[in-house]
Amino acid sequence: MTVPELDVVGIGNALVDVIAHADDEFLDRHALVKGAMSLIETDRAVDLYRAISPAVEMSGGSAANTMVGIASLGGRAGYVGKVRRDDLGNVFSHDMTAVGVRFRGGTPDAELGTGRCIIVVTPDAERTMNTYLGISSLLSVDDLDEELIADASVLYMEGYLFDRDAAKQAFRKAAEIAHANGRKVSLTLSDSFCVDRHREDFVALVRDDVDILFGNEDEIVSLYETDSLDDAIETLRDQCEISAITAGATGSYVVTTDDVVTVAAEPVTKVLDTTGAGDLYAAGFLYGLTRGDSLPRCAEIGGIAAAEVISHVGPRPLVSLRTLVA
Amino acid sequence: MTVPELDVVGIGNALVDVIAHADDEFLDRHALVKGAMSLIETDRAVDLYRAISPAVEMSGGSAANTMVGIASLGGRAGYVGKVRRDDLGNVFSHDMTAVGVRFRGGTPDAELGTGRCIIVVTPDAERTMNTYLGISSLLSVDDLDEELIADASVLYMEGYLFDRDAAKQAFRKAAEIAHANGRKVSLTLSDSFCVDRHREDFVALVRDDVDILFGNEDEIVSLYETDSLDDAIETLRDQCEISAITAGATGSYVVTTDDVVTVAAEPVTKVLDTTGAGDLYAAGFLYGLTRGDSLPRCAEIGGIAAAEVISHVGPRPLVSLRTLVA
Repeated sequence: MTVPELDVVGIGNALVDVIAHADDEFLDRHALVKGAMSLIETDRAVDLYRAISPAVEMSGGSAANTMVGIASLGGRAGYVGKVRRDDLGNVFSHDMTAVGVRFRGGTPDAELGTGRCIIVVTPDAERTMNTYLGISSLLSVDDLDEELIADASVLYMEGYLFDRDAAKQAFRKAAEIAHANGRKVSLTLSDSFCVDRHREDFVALVRDDVDILFGNEDEIVSLYETDSLDDAIETLRDQCEISAITAGATGSYVVTTDDVVTVAAEPVTKVLDTTGAGDLYAAGFLYGLTRGDSLPRCAEIGGIAAAEVISHVGPRPLVSLRTLVA
Repeated sequence: MTVPELDVVGIGNALVDVIAHADDEFLDRHALVKGAMSLIETDRAVDLYRAISPAVEMSGGSAANTMVGIASLGGRAGYVGKVRRDDLGNVFSHDMTAVGVRFRGGTPDAELGTGRCIIVVTPDAERTMNTYLGISSLLSVDDLDEELIADASVLYMEGYLFDRDAAKQAFRKAAEIAHANGRKVSLTLSDSFCVDRHREDFVALVRDDVDILFGNEDEIVSLYETDSLDDAIETLRDQCEISAITAGATGSYVVTTDDVVTVAAEPVTKVLDTTGAGDLYAAGFLYGLTRGDSLPRCAEIGGIAAAEVISHVGPRPLVSLRTLVA
């Protein structure tokens, strides 16, 4: 086992966010499930885009946001996600490399455009995501960069990858490479509906392959089909080395075989857009972990990074997180 | 002369803004002229984009911002500008139609992509613009929509159009159509360097074809090659029916043959990004004018619209200007 060159390498759906504001009535009118991530096809994407107000475009993608967060904290991050060489693909790739993330955009071997996520932010700061995966959904084993994965202390993957078979295989292959090189494998459950769609796979994966699990309360209780977070946590203790469960304004719970620690959230004056909260929490947590910080301190750094991102519109930090944490 | 269906129709370079933050040292290192608009070619655009930090993409374009402002105030606006059917072209066109501006994107008859403007915002909120015109620069007489122009009380054009010959011809043709239909013709001088590049043309145009002129102090003194704003204003009184001259935090001067009126600026708690200030001032002014408001009131509405846009990042209003003005 060699000394890793990177702290974390992420794999996920490479997406550019299209962010617009709307009221709850808009969600009802367009049958959008508030707070959820829904996959949409071309026609629906066209219709929904036509319906939203003027928008702002920013690079997004769950694991990609996390890698940018790690870079912003001063960590060394890499990312694998598939984009096309179109305007949005260029935007995505610029925004990764501009913060120093080593980006592998895969082979642009299809006519599909770069993926995008139409995010509707309601006045309560909740975000409702509608993802047109485009070429990102074709991420496959062939797009993986084995060397990059072998070179990172931690592999980080998003549950959203499970929505497409090719990506699911890439996911498993990546975990295999990481473990073969003595690295840790981490996973975020992404979304309770995503957990619902792939529960069996996730349960097996968490048990057999995941060392560090991220999820919010809804996702964790959905994973083990229980109404009680305590029950879900009890199950989790035997299944996974470390689990970090976010609980909104309460903060987060760090679960290990021996312990459950609650860490308070970082106070926020005004929450403007919750997009990226979980992604940035994972960034802070993993950054702390790769530096050898204690688990409560990891959760604290996660909280600071999440607090920054929810205090403005957009899924990525606007200031250097390194400065905030110091 | 029929009753116009639209209040204002704008013609300009259709651009998507790529907005990033940087310090003054960055401007020096890349030989950028602070506060100015510089035209850049492909290679320079690639280099500069590579150099900037992660960016946000939003529709921009001077006259386009003005038309969106008029729509946001409750006015009826149209816009002619050339885009490609690529990702950025779709973004531009969505953002116009989403606020109700009647948009004509011209014929996408070239391999050039949709134009973009790399805007560097420094900590003092000043913006430095670097425009890659792309297909927008090929706007020609053939792209004009005669009916749209004939149907609007006021034609509004940006001086930036003078940077390309085909667009300059389109500009003159549009003015001809407007006057032939008994409409008013307005012009914004856009930028003092732009005035410098095309001074003779502008002087003749203001004298012969422009009914309502917009510009800031620098542009007006550059136009008449004088150091004194008073002298420039004196000249202007004989040349143009109405001139509205913006003067930053001071407010604006409204100049007619009979009168020069100073109107105070709307107070702003914190100026974050001056991009779009002049564009939105023109929006408010023209909106008032087409509703028959007094000239000082027109300038006041312009000030309110400008104050909104400089209090956040991005060149277009984030809230309904109609509500602000009421």
